[in-house]
Amino acid sequence: MEKINLQEKLSKFSEHWTPKIIAEMNDYQFKLAKIKGEFIWHNHEDTDEVFIVIEGEMQIEFETHTVQLCEGEMYVVPQGEMHKPFAENECKVMLVEPRGVVNTGAVKNALTAENDVWI
Amino acid sequence: MEKINLQEKLSKFSEHWTPKIIAEMNDYQFKLAKIKGEFIWHNHEDTDEVFIVIEGEMQIEFETHTVQLCEGEMYVVPQGEMHKPFAENECKVMLVEPRGVVNTGAVKNALTAENDVWI
Repeated sequence: MEKINLQEKLSKFSEHWTPKIIAEMNDYQFKLAKIKGEFIWHNHEDTDEVFIVIEGEMQIEFETHTVQLCEGEMYVVPQGEMHKPFAENECKVMLVEPRGVVNTGAVKNALTAENDVWI
Repeated sequence: MEKINLQEKLSKFSEHWTPKIIAEMNDYQFKLAKIKGEFIWHNHEDTDEVFIVIEGEMQIEFETHTVQLCEGEMYVVPQGEMHKPFAENECKVMLVEPRGVVNTGAVKNALTAENDVWI
């Protein structure tokens, strides 16, 4: 396998809220996404989900509190917990989660991204 | 849970080749390590292992080739594959692997780090 350069992979797409797979480790996937604006409330019933901020700032709103994340910060969204990501300006993030997780959880709407897209 | 700042966590230890856990996602762990010099040949029989370079440069030697990794680059060491990490100067890395993986695999020697150490 080839090594993976995060900036090189990020340069390959510009759309928001469409996670792209860059690597697999066992049955887990590493994905890159560019996010801007407000996402939707959703959860992932079967898994935790990791956000790592590569560049920019974002927030994750929970029912009882909001987490602010800057470059070089990460957060583990607990399994089942309702959350809504938000970024005022474009933010570049890495997601880590099991293969097959859909970005909007059980909700299907215009923000539901095609799954299993590699770059 | 609290958000995790990688630089803040890295400032809490200085020793080399002793991965420290900073987060868990399901039964997987995110660890930070500072590495310098030559590690030992080893493998992980049951799992892939991810290296993400936070700062500096490192190499992973395999039996047939060597991978050079710079800041912002990652590599998935395949399950079972013999490898030997090396860094000429101190390099700061994040590791992602299942809970319970020992840094030297089945080999036990002076470089075998205590497992399950959180910072």
